[in-house]
Amino acid sequence: MINAAPSDKALVPFVSVDHMMQLIHHIGVEEMLCGLAEYIEADFKRWQLFDKTPRVASHSTEGVIELMPTSDGEVYGFKYVNGHPKNTAEGLQTVTAFGLLADVSNGYPVLLSEMTLLTAMRTAATSALVARTLAPKGATTMAMIGNGAQSEFQSLAMKAICGIREIRLYDTDPQATQKCASNLADQGLILTTCSTAEEAMVGAQIITTCTADKQYATILTDNMVGAGVHINAIGGDCPGKTELAPAILHRSDIFVEYPEQTRIEGEIQQLAETHPVTEIWQVFTGQAEGRVSDKQITLFDSVGFAIEDFSALRYIRDQIKETGLFHPLDLLADPDNPRDLFGMLQRSK
Amino acid sequence: MINAAPSDKALVPFVSVDHMMQLIHHIGVEEMLCGLAEYIEADFKRWQLFDKTPRVASHSTEGVIELMPTSDGEVYGFKYVNGHPKNTAEGLQTVTAFGLLADVSNGYPVLLSEMTLLTAMRTAATSALVARTLAPKGATTMAMIGNGAQSEFQSLAMKAICGIREIRLYDTDPQATQKCASNLADQGLILTTCSTAEEAMVGAQIITTCTADKQYATILTDNMVGAGVHINAIGGDCPGKTELAPAILHRSDIFVEYPEQTRIEGEIQQLAETHPVTEIWQVFTGQAEGRVSDKQITLFDSVGFAIEDFSALRYIRDQIKETGLFHPLDLLADPDNPRDLFGMLQRSK
Repeated sequence: MINAAPSDKALVPFVSVDHMMQLIHHIGVEEMLCGLAEYIEADFKRWQLFDKTPRVASHSTEGVIELMPTSDGEVYGFKYVNGHPKNTAEGLQTVTAFGLLADVSNGYPVLLSEMTLLTAMRTAATSALVARTLAPKGATTMAMIGNGAQSEFQSLAMKAICGIREIRLYDTDPQATQKCASNLADQGLILTTCSTAEEAMVGAQIITTCTADKQYATILTDNMVGAGVHINAIGGDCPGKTELAPAILHRSDIFVEYPEQTRIEGEIQQLAETHPVTEIWQVFTGQAEGRVSDKQITLFDSVGFAIEDFSALRYIRDQIKETGLFHPLDLLADPDNPRDLFGMLQRSK
Repeated sequence: MINAAPSDKALVPFVSVDHMMQLIHHIGVEEMLCGLAEYIEADFKRWQLFDKTPRVASHSTEGVIELMPTSDGEVYGFKYVNGHPKNTAEGLQTVTAFGLLADVSNGYPVLLSEMTLLTAMRTAATSALVARTLAPKGATTMAMIGNGAQSEFQSLAMKAICGIREIRLYDTDPQATQKCASNLADQGLILTTCSTAEEAMVGAQIITTCTADKQYATILTDNMVGAGVHINAIGGDCPGKTELAPAILHRSDIFVEYPEQTRIEGEIQQLAETHPVTEIWQVFTGQAEGRVSDKQITLFDSVGFAIEDFSALRYIRDQIKETGLFHPLDLLADPDNPRDLFGMLQRSK
C-alpha cells in the first residue's frame, strides 16, 4: 500500500526509553551527569538569550499536565511532563515526560526523546551543578531526605560533580531507603541509613529534600538546620507543595532558577512576593554572589525550568549522532511539492 | 543489552504519516471528513466544559512554533504546529504538526499522532461544518481562492458535508490551480479553473480564501463580494496575516471559534476590539443565531482552535482501535516499582 519511503526531512530521530537506558550505560551514569551539567551551565551563562515563559499548566484534582517551552533563537524545545502524586499508589510513575527539539528557522522537529529518565538525570545534574557553587568548600556528606525515584540520581550527581563521599538516607518509608541503599551499594559511596531526618542531617554539609506528597509539608523544621549548610530543595515544585518550614527560608540566602515560576511553585510561595532571591544564572556569570561566608545557609529552591530540559535535549542530540541510539520516526508529512499534500496522500493509495 | 520488554503502560500508540495515510484510505477521505465533522460538532456543543487558553506561541523572524493545549477534564490534548511561510520556497511544508492525547487522571499519554495530514483534514471538516450552518440553503458552488495544500481538502469537505457540486479554482500561481484541478479530477466535482478571483466568485454561494503569504494582503476587495454569500476565511491566521479588505468585514456578520485568539490572529485583527462577533459553538447549541436572511454576508473567520485538534485526535484514537494502524512507541519509563527508576536503569544493563 505504500509507494515510497518518507524523505529525510519527514523522519525525526526518536530516543525511546530503551535507547535512553542504552545511552546512559554507554556513556556511564556519572559521566553523563557531568556532561549534562556542562550543557546546563553553558545555557545558564547565556540565560538572557532565551525566550522564557512560565510553564503552561493544566491542573486537575488528581494532578497537573505541563508544557515547558523555550528557545534560544536557533533551537526551540519543549517538554511534556505530568505530576500526579497519587500515581505511586497505583503502580505508576508520579512524573513521566518526553521532549522535543525543533529548528526555529523552519519549525521542523529534529529530536523527540523520552524524558522520564532524562528529567531525573538533568534534575540531579542541576542540583549538583548549583551545589558545587553554593555548598561549603570541602563538603563530603549529603543528607538525602526522601528516597524515591530521584534519590539515587541526586546521590551520584553530588558524588560526580561535588565530590560527596557519604550519603545519609532517610525516608518515612523504610522500604524506600532500603531500595535506595541497595541500588547505590556498588557505586563507591559510604551509605548510612537513618531512622529520622535529624539523624540523616548529622555532619551533612548538603541537605537534599525530595519528597512527593502534594501538601504544605514540613520535612525540615527550623531547629533541625544549623549554620553553614547548603539546602537543595527539590520536592517543593507546585502550588500547595512545599517541604521547608518558613523560618528556615528566612534564615537562608535563596537561589532560584526563574523567579516568576518559583514564586508560584517553589518553597518561596510561602514568602512575600518581594522577598529577595538570587537568580542562579547570575551566580554562574559572576553578576551575583554565591556563598560568601561559612555561617551562611544557602538554599537552592529548585522547581525545574525549561532551559534545563533544553540543555538536556541538546546533550542527547549531540550524543546520538555518534552512537546511533535512536529510531527514525515517520512523524512529518513531507511531500515532494509542499503544496501537494493531497497528491502525496493519493499516491500512497 | 535489554532484559525485558516495556510494560503496556509504557507504550504509547503512535500514528505515523504512513499509518495516517493508510487510515484515511481505509475509511475514505470524504467519510473521514464527515466523521471528523461529527466529533468537532459534538465538542463544540460541550464547549464550556473545555479548559481553553490561547495557543502558546514562540515567534521568530521566519515564522512561529505553537503549542495548542486543551482538556475536557477527562482527556488532555495538545498539538505542536509551526507556521513558516518561507518554507514552501525551500521545498518544505509551511505547516507541520503532531499531537498528543493524555489521560487527565494519571497524566500518561495515550496517543501520539502525526497531524500535518490530520490538521488539513480537521480544518476542512470544520470549515464545511460551519458552512453547512451558515451558507445559503441549496448552495452548490464554491470559489476556492488559493489552491495550495489545503484546497483539495476544503473542496472535498464542502462536497461531502454541504453538498457543493462545483468548485471554481483560482490562485496567483496557475501551477497551483493545475495541481489542485488534477488532484480533484476524479472526485465527482465540476471543476472550473479561473484566471482571476472575480471570475472564481461568479455564481459561488461559498467563497473560501486560503492563501499563505504572511502580510496584510487583500485577496478580496469590497466590490468583489455580493450579498448573500458565505465567506470561509482560512488564510488569515496569525498577527499581520489577513486576506480580506476591512470594508467586507464591516458588511459581514462574523463568526469565530475563540474570540480571545481570533482578535489576535484572524481577519478581525483589523477591527476594533469591541466589534461584535458570534462564537460559533453558540450557533451549534442554539444559543445564538446563524444565518437569518438571504441578503446577509456570513463570514467564518477561522484561525483553528485547540478543541478541533482535540476532536480530531479523539476520532483517530477511536479509529485505530479497530484498524490496528499504529505502532506501540516506547515513550514512557515505567518501572515495576514506580520509585525504582534507577533500579530499572541498572537492570537494563
